[in-house]
Amino acid sequence: MVKQEDDFKKVISHAKEYGYVFQSSEIYDGLSAVYDYAQNGAELKKNIREYWWKAMVQLNDNIVGLDSAIFMHPTVWKASGHVDAFNDPLIDNKDSKKRYRADVLVEDYTAKIEAKIDKEVAKANKRFGDAFDKEQFLATNPRVVGYQEKINTILKRLGQSLEKEDLADVKKLIEELEIACPLSGSKNWTDVKQFNLMFGTKLGASADSAMDLYLRPETAQGIFVNFLNVQKTGRMKIPFGIAQVGKAFRNEIVARQFIFRQREFEQMEMQFFIRPGSQKEWYESWKENRMKWHLSLGMGEGNYRFHDHEKLAHYADAAADIEFKFPFGFKELEGIHSRTDFDLGSHEKHSGKKLQYFDPELNESYVPYVVETSIGLDRMFLAVFSNSLVEEKLENNTTRTVLRLPAVLAPNKAAVLPLVKKDGLPELAQEIIDDLKWDFNVVYDEKDAVGRRYRRQDANGTPFCITVDHQSLEDKTVTIRHRDTMEQERVSIADLKGIIHKEVDMKTWLQRML
Amino acid sequence: MVKQEDDFKKVISHAKEYGYVFQSSEIYDGLSAVYDYAQNGAELKKNIREYWWKAMVQLNDNIVGLDSAIFMHPTVWKASGHVDAFNDPLIDNKDSKKRYRADVLVEDYTAKIEAKIDKEVAKANKRFGDAFDKEQFLATNPRVVGYQEKINTILKRLGQSLEKEDLADVKKLIEELEIACPLSGSKNWTDVKQFNLMFGTKLGASADSAMDLYLRPETAQGIFVNFLNVQKTGRMKIPFGIAQVGKAFRNEIVARQFIFRQREFEQMEMQFFIRPGSQKEWYESWKENRMKWHLSLGMGEGNYRFHDHEKLAHYADAAADIEFKFPFGFKELEGIHSRTDFDLGSHEKHSGKKLQYFDPELNESYVPYVVETSIGLDRMFLAVFSNSLVEEKLENNTTRTVLRLPAVLAPNKAAVLPLVKKDGLPELAQEIIDDLKWDFNVVYDEKDAVGRRYRRQDANGTPFCITVDHQSLEDKTVTIRHRDTMEQERVSIADLKGIIHKEVDMKTWLQRML
Repeated sequence: MVKQEDDFKKVISHAKEYGYVFQSSEIYDGLSAVYDYAQNGAELKKNIREYWWKAMVQLNDNIVGLDSAIFMHPTVWKASGHVDAFNDPLIDNKDSKKRYRADVLVEDYTAKIEAKIDKEVAKANKRFGDAFDKEQFLATNPRVVGYQEKINTILKRLGQSLEKEDLADVKKLIEELEIACPLSGSKNWTDVKQFNLMFGTKLGASADSAMDLYLRPETAQGIFVNFLNVQKTGRMKIPFGIAQVGKAFRNEIVARQFIFRQREFEQMEMQFFIRPGSQKEWYESWKENRMKWHLSLGMGEGNYRFHDHEKLAHYADAAADIEFKFPFGFKELEGIHSRTDFDLGSHEKHSGKKLQYFDPELNESYVPYVVETSIGLDRMFLAVFSNSLVEEKLENNTTRTVLRLPAVLAPNKAAVLPLVKKDGLPELAQEIIDDLKWDFNVVYDEKDAVGRRYRRQDANGTPFCITVDHQSLEDKTVTIRHRDTMEQERVSIADLKGIIHKEVDMKTWLQRML
Repeated sequence: MVKQEDDFKKVISHAKEYGYVFQSSEIYDGLSAVYDYAQNGAELKKNIREYWWKAMVQLNDNIVGLDSAIFMHPTVWKASGHVDAFNDPLIDNKDSKKRYRADVLVEDYTAKIEAKIDKEVAKANKRFGDAFDKEQFLATNPRVVGYQEKINTILKRLGQSLEKEDLADVKKLIEELEIACPLSGSKNWTDVKQFNLMFGTKLGASADSAMDLYLRPETAQGIFVNFLNVQKTGRMKIPFGIAQVGKAFRNEIVARQFIFRQREFEQMEMQFFIRPGSQKEWYESWKENRMKWHLSLGMGEGNYRFHDHEKLAHYADAAADIEFKFPFGFKELEGIHSRTDFDLGSHEKHSGKKLQYFDPELNESYVPYVVETSIGLDRMFLAVFSNSLVEEKLENNTTRTVLRLPAVLAPNKAAVLPLVKKDGLPELAQEIIDDLKWDFNVVYDEKDAVGRRYRRQDANGTPFCITVDHQSLEDKTVTIRHRDTMEQERVSIADLKGIIHKEVDMKTWLQRML
């Protein structure tokens, strides 16, 4: 599997070569950390979005959808805490004029000490061979213990200073550690300043009526401000959820790792409104439910793990990530957060409107608690894409590149290939397409030898190749080839739809969640 | 039908009451000209989007999708002409401090003269009765002819001044016509200034690396800058198309008419790349194809008309609108534009990259011509929603409000209603839902008398109501009620899926385009 850090470049170049992801505005030399989804990528992304929507909205009686605008009233972001607290601590080097995240500078410093520990471990491992006990070594080797203590001390101080917003101490820490600018090598730093990550813009033209707006940094608030309208017009009873998919924007200083961290990205979020006191139970239940969704795609149980947060955001009383094994290691793919009544309560305060639910069973009104599930669509795309890209050794000692996308998510479900470009085979192929296209995305491919076309469709991720040959003209059969096994079978043209439906239909895949 | 201007308010209030469209950030007293799609609206919008995507991408071998980012390199908007020419001429009244579009002030003035003509026509009509010949009257009545000449003179001068960007003359015209500020009554005007309609923002934090970005004012340019990458990686042969759906943003001074003209909106655009010289043929072919798509929804042929543009935008050599009869009259719903090689040619010039296609049949390279189809998703939503809202007189002299959405677009396909809340009927209803939900959005409703529930689902636009009664427990049959005819039939539970599929499946509806 192409999953090692070294192979990440292969993922990126395959994504470009096979029409999945292009750099934005490439002809203008690109726009940093912004990407476009190309012809195949647009379909894969759309299928992931639909797979999530069906699982969340269609299959759950008590969850409804929403599609709120990117623009919102600016006070929303005051209430949510983003105006005051959605900041990165930045520091400039006076010589290189380059700007850095102060916390990342410190963390990079500790990473270097970490690397020293790894080196000691490797050395000892080599020396002691099978007898080497890593746990014991880490706990007793004086040098390693010293390194680890140093790391702990630094990170603790950084955490405390950031928490207290003592930015002067963050600068002092950088100076004490003698951290130099990687570019200029200079230690000539400015003060640390908070920089808000929201993109701003202005609505309206007139000087006196222009309004400062933000591009939403998360979709969740669109759900909170509409909570009562949805509950009332939809006659929803607690517990119920509101789900939405949409763009969000963050002016990241350090945006990297391809589509993993972009300045413009798409979120799939669901806010589940519950009775205060029941949050623990719902939090556990949504953790489990969301993991089932991931596992239904069959991408390998070992590629997922939970990471429970010890340090909690200001709005949460419990939080966990579902981490996925990306080419660069286990990283957050989805978050499940018990948000309490923080958001609705804060919107009550800032808007002066009651955001309460009357519970007919308890015969009382309250501000509901919320459990949220929040997944990055682009990250999910990267998880699926990178995990599917495989270089296989074949029996005849050749290799093939195959994109083993879960068939339900594949952009094209079948390619129809006439064996030769004459004798009426292209016409019959086209007839088959004209029938299948009402049900699936199908493509036609007549160029090159059929073996090469198979390889091309393997690399494209197409689950089925349907080959039309001379026998097809006589008995209305074709061969259908399966991408993953490369097995071929001769089937009746009339049976094609049924065979494909069985493998690609969302409902079949979603039923694996049961 | 609720289609008169007076009834537009009913459309807006129904959209809110039944969970289709809410004002954005309503709890903060709203954000002007920005709307959120609520639980039913989100599904209707999603279904329209999917109906377009299937018709354009899935059914056409030679059209592929794209999902490009909202952020693009700023030079894109220089090349497209938006930085220089995407302006409104604005003028401020010095006393009221209110800002206006200068051209709209003048047009409002001519509208008042138009109203005088209408008055004369009405008067003469009353006087002459059946003998009245309107054409002749307009051509010969001296007073009316004088009014019309005045209108023509004013609009011609306005057009010429705007074309030449002679803004001083636009101001002079306003002064000569003695147009007063509707608010203050004053004629004390500032100069006319151009105001760009693009929303700006800044990417990056560092002073020296921050980049001025725009929120894209149209999705088309995302297609143009990716044209060559898609053509090459997708091995596309001309003629071929690239389709995309996405948000666009325009800082409109006068945004009004509910979701018809918003500052944030969604476009569904397709750019079709063709051989130079074939544009006339493809332009006509796409006009016809797009009209067929609209008519497939069965919303009444008489509600659509073509409007061919006489005045063409700088990039076009032919352009037409498909207009729809909105509650406020016939207005643009979709545009079909023959854009020549303007965009690709301009991107060649600004990027320094060749954007040419090698045509194997002609054995030569060229910059392709483009025919575009561009429809506003929000406008399509308004067309479908307003046209579907009907108040019907029933035989017993009562009325019912029914939202006759095309079943393929309805947010929920069926409601399942237990006749009473006991005797195991709710449980059987739930069983039916648990089976149907894998195929459709279905809702459960147990509150109020069944007649009232029918009315509620009529107003919600749900095509089918399935009622579970005591007989259902015995013989596994239910009644299914059709929204539009109100007819009920007793059917086997096992047949429900088939009955619903037949009425709501996209492929059945799209086949009407054939």
